[in-house]
Amino acid sequence: MKFSFENNDRIVFAGDSITDSNSTNPVGEGLFGNLGNGYVRLIEAMLFAYYPEINIRITNSGISGNTIRDLKGRWQRDVLDLEPQWVNILIGANDVWRQMDMPAFPHACVLPDEYEKTLEEMLISLQGKVKGVTLMLPYYMENNLSDKMRAEIEKYDDICRHLGEKYGCIIIDLQHMFDEYLNYHHSSFLAWDRIHPNMTACVLIAREYLKAVGFDFDHKPL
Amino acid sequence: MKFSFENNDRIVFAGDSITDSNSTNPVGEGLFGNLGNGYVRLIEAMLFAYYPEINIRITNSGISGNTIRDLKGRWQRDVLDLEPQWVNILIGANDVWRQMDMPAFPHACVLPDEYEKTLEEMLISLQGKVKGVTLMLPYYMENNLSDKMRAEIEKYDDICRHLGEKYGCIIIDLQHMFDEYLNYHHSSFLAWDRIHPNMTACVLIAREYLKAVGFDFDHKPL
Amino acid sequence: MKFSFENNDRIVFAGDSITDSNSTNPVGEGLFGNLGNGYVRLIEAMLFAYYPEINIRITNSGISGNTIRDLKGRWQRDVLDLEPQWVNILIGANDVWRQMDMPAFPHACVLPDEYEKTLEEMLISLQGKVKGVTLMLPYYMENNLSDKMRAEIEKYDDICRHLGEKYGCIIIDLQHMFDEYLNYHHSSFLAWDRIHPNMTACVLIAREYLKAVGFDFDHKPL
Amino acid sequence: MKFSFENNDRIVFAGDSITDSNSTNPVGEGLFGNLGNGYVRLIEAMLFAYYPEINIRITNSGISGNTIRDLKGRWQRDVLDLEPQWVNILIGANDVWRQMDMPAFPHACVLPDEYEKTLEEMLISLQGKVKGVTLMLPYYMENNLSDKMRAEIEKYDDICRHLGEKYGCIIIDLQHMFDEYLNYHHSSFLAWDRIHPNMTACVLIAREYLKAVGFDFDHKPL
Amino acid sequence: MKFSFENNDRIVFAGDSITDSNSTNPVGEGLFGNLGNGYVRLIEAMLFAYYPEINIRITNSGISGNTIRDLKGRWQRDVLDLEPQWVNILIGANDVWRQMDMPAFPHACVLPDEYEKTLEEMLISLQGKVKGVTLMLPYYMENNLSDKMRAEIEKYDDICRHLGEKYGCIIIDLQHMFDEYLNYHHSSFLAWDRIHPNMTACVLIAREYLKAVGFDFDHKPL
Amino acid sequence: MKFSFENNDRIVFAGDSITDSNSTNPVGEGLFGNLGNGYVRLIEAMLFAYYPEINIRITNSGISGNTIRDLKGRWQRDVLDLEPQWVNILIGANDVWRQMDMPAFPHACVLPDEYEKTLEEMLISLQGKVKGVTLMLPYYMENNLSDKMRAEIEKYDDICRHLGEKYGCIIIDLQHMFDEYLNYHHSSFLAWDRIHPNMTACVLIAREYLKAVGFDFDHKPL
Amino acid sequence: MKFSFENNDRIVFAGDSITDSNSTNPVGEGLFGNLGNGYVRLIEAMLFAYYPEINIRITNSGISGNTIRDLKGRWQRDVLDLEPQWVNILIGANDVWRQMDMPAFPHACVLPDEYEKTLEEMLISLQGKVKGVTLMLPYYMENNLSDKMRAEIEKYDDICRHLGEKYGCIIIDLQHMFDEYLNYHHSSFLAWDRIHPNMTACVLIAREYLKAVGFDFDHKPL
Amino acid sequence: MKFSFENNDRIVFAGDSITDSNSTNPVGEGLFGNLGNGYVRLIEAMLFAYYPEINIRITNSGISGNTIRDLKGRWQRDVLDLEPQWVNILIGANDVWRQMDMPAFPHACVLPDEYEKTLEEMLISLQGKVKGVTLMLPYYMENNLSDKMRAEIEKYDDICRHLGEKYGCIIIDLQHMFDEYLNYHHSSFLAWDRIHPNMTACVLIAREYLKAVGFDFDHKPL
Repeated sequence: MKFSFENNDRIVFAGDSITDSNSTNPVGEGLFGNLGNGYVRLIEAMLFAYYPEINIRITNSGISGNTIRDLKGRWQRDVLDLEPQWVNILIGANDVWRQMDMPAFPHACVLPDEYEKTLEEMLISLQGKVKGVTLMLPYYMENNLSDKMRAEIEKYDDICRHLGEKYGCIIIDLQHMFDEYLNYHHSSFLAWDRIHPNMTACVLIAREYLKAVGFDFDHKPL
Repeated sequence: MKFSFENNDRIVFAGDSITDSNSTNPVGEGLFGNLGNGYVRLIEAMLFAYYPEINIRITNSGISGNTIRDLKGRWQRDVLDLEPQWVNILIGANDVWRQMDMPAFPHACVLPDEYEKTLEEMLISLQGKVKGVTLMLPYYMENNLSDKMRAEIEKYDDICRHLGEKYGCIIIDLQHMFDEYLNYHHSSFLAWDRIHPNMTACVLIAREYLKAVGFDFDHKPL
Repeated sequence: MKFSFENNDRIVFAGDSITDSNSTNPVGEGLFGNLGNGYVRLIEAMLFAYYPEINIRITNSGISGNTIRDLKGRWQRDVLDLEPQWVNILIGANDVWRQMDMPAFPHACVLPDEYEKTLEEMLISLQGKVKGVTLMLPYYMENNLSDKMRAEIEKYDDICRHLGEKYGCIIIDLQHMFDEYLNYHHSSFLAWDRIHPNMTACVLIAREYLKAVGFDFDHKPL
Repeated sequence: MKFSFENNDRIVFAGDSITDSNSTNPVGEGLFGNLGNGYVRLIEAMLFAYYPEINIRITNSGISGNTIRDLKGRWQRDVLDLEPQWVNILIGANDVWRQMDMPAFPHACVLPDEYEKTLEEMLISLQGKVKGVTLMLPYYMENNLSDKMRAEIEKYDDICRHLGEKYGCIIIDLQHMFDEYLNYHHSSFLAWDRIHPNMTACVLIAREYLKAVGFDFDHKPL
Repeated sequence: MKFSFENNDRIVFAGDSITDSNSTNPVGEGLFGNLGNGYVRLIEAMLFAYYPEINIRITNSGISGNTIRDLKGRWQRDVLDLEPQWVNILIGANDVWRQMDMPAFPHACVLPDEYEKTLEEMLISLQGKVKGVTLMLPYYMENNLSDKMRAEIEKYDDICRHLGEKYGCIIIDLQHMFDEYLNYHHSSFLAWDRIHPNMTACVLIAREYLKAVGFDFDHKPL
Repeated sequence: MKFSFENNDRIVFAGDSITDSNSTNPVGEGLFGNLGNGYVRLIEAMLFAYYPEINIRITNSGISGNTIRDLKGRWQRDVLDLEPQWVNILIGANDVWRQMDMPAFPHACVLPDEYEKTLEEMLISLQGKVKGVTLMLPYYMENNLSDKMRAEIEKYDDICRHLGEKYGCIIIDLQHMFDEYLNYHHSSFLAWDRIHPNMTACVLIAREYLKAVGFDFDHKPL
Repeated sequence: MKFSFENNDRIVFAGDSITDSNSTNPVGEGLFGNLGNGYVRLIEAMLFAYYPEINIRITNSGISGNTIRDLKGRWQRDVLDLEPQWVNILIGANDVWRQMDMPAFPHACVLPDEYEKTLEEMLISLQGKVKGVTLMLPYYMENNLSDKMRAEIEKYDDICRHLGEKYGCIIIDLQHMFDEYLNYHHSSFLAWDRIHPNMTACVLIAREYLKAVGFDFDHKPL
Repeated sequence: MKFSFENNDRIVFAGDSITDSNSTNPVGEGLFGNLGNGYVRLIEAMLFAYYPEINIRITNSGISGNTIRDLKGRWQRDVLDLEPQWVNILIGANDVWRQMDMPAFPHACVLPDEYEKTLEEMLISLQGKVKGVTLMLPYYMENNLSDKMRAEIEKYDDICRHLGEKYGCIIIDLQHMFDEYLNYHHSSFLAWDRIHPNMTACVLIAREYLKAVGFDFDHKPL
């Protein structure tokens, strides 16, 4: 597979705390830890290390606690106005989580219908404006399919999969990847709350992303 | 059921971070937050509020991160030397957890055989020295029985149940209680990592304890 | 007595520092300690633990230092606009206290006439808008009736009792409850300044509240 | 009355948190706030301001939380070894307080018999070694004589009065002074917990002390 | 001399860091250390302690670093609008100091002409609005009259003395008082920079003030 | 090339601040950030992510500021006593750097002769005790061979190369790798001081290490 | 050479972090560390120490991270509006550095053409308004002329040199000075990142400046 | 005059807080601010900047608050054991100051006789062990000779002068230098407490020192 990025491409990673990882808010990039210390920073470092001959600008537009409703509210400012060539979306964990841990606050979560409608608006807004969209499926590091939250996440994954195909996104199935990995280790090996990835889980996420964009581990710069 | 405690009884709660909850280490009691802010503090407040006519001295001997091996190492100093009338034991979460999140460090966890042997030594050491022992079964807030950590905890619960009966302890089955509760809410409603109880889960633990020692919610002081 | 609350009811606790207890200001609710660490948090945890089958939303509208004049100034925003089904009011401690500790600042306290007028306006504003109002009588943990502050609080309690009956509130007589309790322990067992409740006193307050709203300690969820 | 102090006299103030007031522990004196910010610092400043022609060395040997048992334990090191010309003693608040707020910890307080025996040992140890001893009676800022703690303090005051006379101490009756003052203001005007003096109460304590040692407000240095 | 203050009088102390002493800015009063920890707090405590039968409201309107120009800029808001019965003014130290330590910044200090004009405006603004004005002369704790800063302060003192008499103020000659005191101790006994008073120097300032307003150390409340 | 590590192998990374990266000192491993945030943590995460089927225990024995003399001083305790199967050594940067930035302190650096002698002792001590030693050559991110520090590092690299071959180490030539990389970017793209690697440089170091131990980016766990 | 400055001259130092050195932003001067702790503070201290008979007002208008584009944006407010007699300019390090460490962010740096145009505008704006302009050439503490950043800085130095001559500035060739110095010590003796001067390098910069303005080390005040 | 220092000379600066200036205690040298931020650091930077061709090792052995008695107590460890070629001594400020600000603590200061005896012992201990001793006379930034502290310092200066000559020290008369300087500026231009030098005063001290050791401002390295 051919490597997706060209010199001077800009990639915006939009999402919640998984993406944010202590990055500068609302958007962070460049030096001084602005990019956070999660999977986005790792992806940047991998690109910089393996492809030194091309410049790629990475922007972290993740904000902790965001649902897709919150992300939509800042979509114009934090994604579209930045005029990126590539956009990565990973959103949905809080949409489901708040149904579990704050059941008395129905307005705090986002149900599947609204999620679908909002995601579609976001994907439509990108049509014709970017070279490509990578859509990471929300995940819960749990391979018991009957776990309430795992089951609920499944619905959001289906929506992502459906819309991602409809709008020609590159789909990155993190749930599937974690399901496979959990055959080897308990979820607490990756995240104590089954959501926020430790360094090992960041490597796993980054690997899926890099694979999806044609990153070549044997690449040699000219 | 008759209320277990008499005037001037001292109760020592021995355990790990679930018991500790930011209490003073190695042991804490009395004013100034020494007792921590978890289920122990709540139990003390319940006893003080409902039974003002008797004085009960509560000591928190929980230390974060302890396995039963660690607890045994300080058993003489932090439990026996305090000469309590009652002892509560809740230990085992770290013994299992380290098998999950630190699999490369086999010395960091405690396997069932050692757990059983150690617990038995602890229970024997209390024989004839206290009015009673309450033994809380370690738990994992997960009702999927096939979850690796949940399945492993089960073994420790069996050991506790067996030894508890053998040595005449009052058994408090927290795992069963949480299993029941999880029919109503997802585990993230009680603890983000399925171990450390939030205030709601502390109420649940305290309720089981109070029930076990004959606490009467309709009690009126003389 | 029947349990007062139904699924999805929202309860707002309005008051001063006794209610506030380090909650988020002006109003706090949900996760992350937003609800403070006082009697409100305890009541929420009791409801969540015993009645898992119904969702109840608790909001802490207490702000430290508030007199009834301050509370009235933010009544629309911090209580009415939240459209609660239930409102709890506990106000008056600072109205009296400032007469004692800042006698040179007459504008810093609220005298009985203004207190009565203001409370009545607040109660009227709730008429027809809520399922019920619980009115906690302000207290001073002192059973010497000739203590200046205790005597003064008495007047405010009378106003509360009178208006509470007039407007059909559920009256919760904390002063009486504490008077009873102080037969067993000195006030410093509950609060060093006779106002701010420690954990034991929070349990006492919560117990009165739960009793008043028909909480059943033997309740079993379906 | 003649002024008690002569050039180069050293005065040691022994006591608990009332004396300590954030002074350097175990003993503090001299510059840099070592003397704390309570009545001791105020007395020093009054002496320095009104009697600049004589040098008086003031040492704060108060430690927060001390009962007379604690004070006795460090008596040799923190009082006798300093070879003062004058000693002031104010001890007993914690001896009583712990009976009130920690009734389950009988070892945390000091009952009258032990208090009397210990105070007598302390006073005997000073015989022939100092120019004079000023003995401040412990107090509780409460003029309701039936308050449990107030009533208990009375016993300790009687012991002090009796022993103070027996050993020729200058007796400073702070309880009486505060009783008088509380005719004008509520105790919360002086201390929120009726023990720890605010600046106004420090002035009241200092005034009694200065009166007792013959301080002359009309004194003019030569 | 008759005591100046009557029940419910309000006194505003206007000035610079000597007055401010970590008080709340722009104005501070009441509890919680709002009044700072300098001579103003001490005067309040003396009045409260000796004259409990009358209420006096003390406000600290000192702000660190202020010259008379700065004070004039906030005179309406921080003094006149508070409608005090009494005003105390102590200003000028920075007006002179900046001539010494920042000679390259002529705009940072205030020369005698501007000082005189500004002080006169301030005093005129108080005419007929207050019961009395106490005017403290700025000082430098230095009795070498040829010291540049001491000599310069002298000019400001003369202006104060002249205008104070013209407008019927009670003049409090702090410079003279310190000059006398410095016969006994070196200035470093009172302040390391010869300006900011330590506790001893605060007592000296307070004593002059209290003398000037007829405070009676033998006063007994009715 | 075959992957070097087997289940339960322990790898100790010995070195200076490049290795340390805020890890726990003297040695750190396991959870809670004990492993630091540099190349060691990244290598662990890569191994955990790609080879979940085998457990590998990684220990960080780097301490900031260490020269080889310092490392030798703690070699027994921090490396040998841990009984690792594999040891990685990266030492020498401070040995040279102190010659540059502290020329007046000749004892603060380590000259080539001592470096060679010490490294040989270290390598000999590992003979027959480990499965393998990886020896990273010290580097300076500078491809101007005439730079004083770059030229000096060269000598240490030669020593490492020579001894590494003599004792059968796997040699990892970081200097050569950085030299290549600097054809694409200025050194400030990797480290502002040409020594301490940012995340991109950590990826570069980790890549060399993984390559050297037969890590397979296409590896699939069984 | 005659000394450039006269009594009451004001000198503004405009620049980036080299000038800023933790000074107050946007401009700092006078006491309390407002001037930072770099070469500007040192120059002020030298002038104050050697020329006490004249007053010179020094203002630090450096802000960390500024390129010439940033400096131009605040030129009116932070330089011209201050109406200085003398202006010193040292700008360009970030203009070049960002080309090296953030190659993916072309808008973050300033290329030679824009640099030249902007500097010329700044110099023109000063024509006829000041007594003189001192123009420090940007530097990189590196004497390897083929280093990418060193080579690039050279271009900016040429622009400065050319425009400085065109507009009659006093040119201070810091690059040349550092080149000379680096014959004796490695760059890490002066700055770990070859940009931010340590105290030794500040002395070197100050020396060049003072030489350029006719400072006489043998000067004796009248 | 010939420059005193040769390659690899070590100079120890012994003293109190004037020397210390936040340096590492008990002795500090080298990188990371270990040398403090006062005149010692400035002297090092001047030597490094002007004489790059020779290496000079500077050690700061100043500790805040030291009298000569304290310095003597650590003389062996902090000066002699370091085997310096040169020693600078500046001690005496606290010896005198404590007489002024702590007159009730005669043991806190050091009177002339003890000062003389102690200094002589220190100077004798250096005989034959060093290339030279520079003796800075203690100072008080006050040119009013009748100021108590100034007058007292004079006695210590005389002792220094006398012993300095007797033992062949290079005498650096800081008092005289400051006296001269104070003809131009008030002492608050150099130090708010007339002791602790600001940057300008550090330059003045460094200048005297450099002059005394033959530093040449026109020196050009070979």
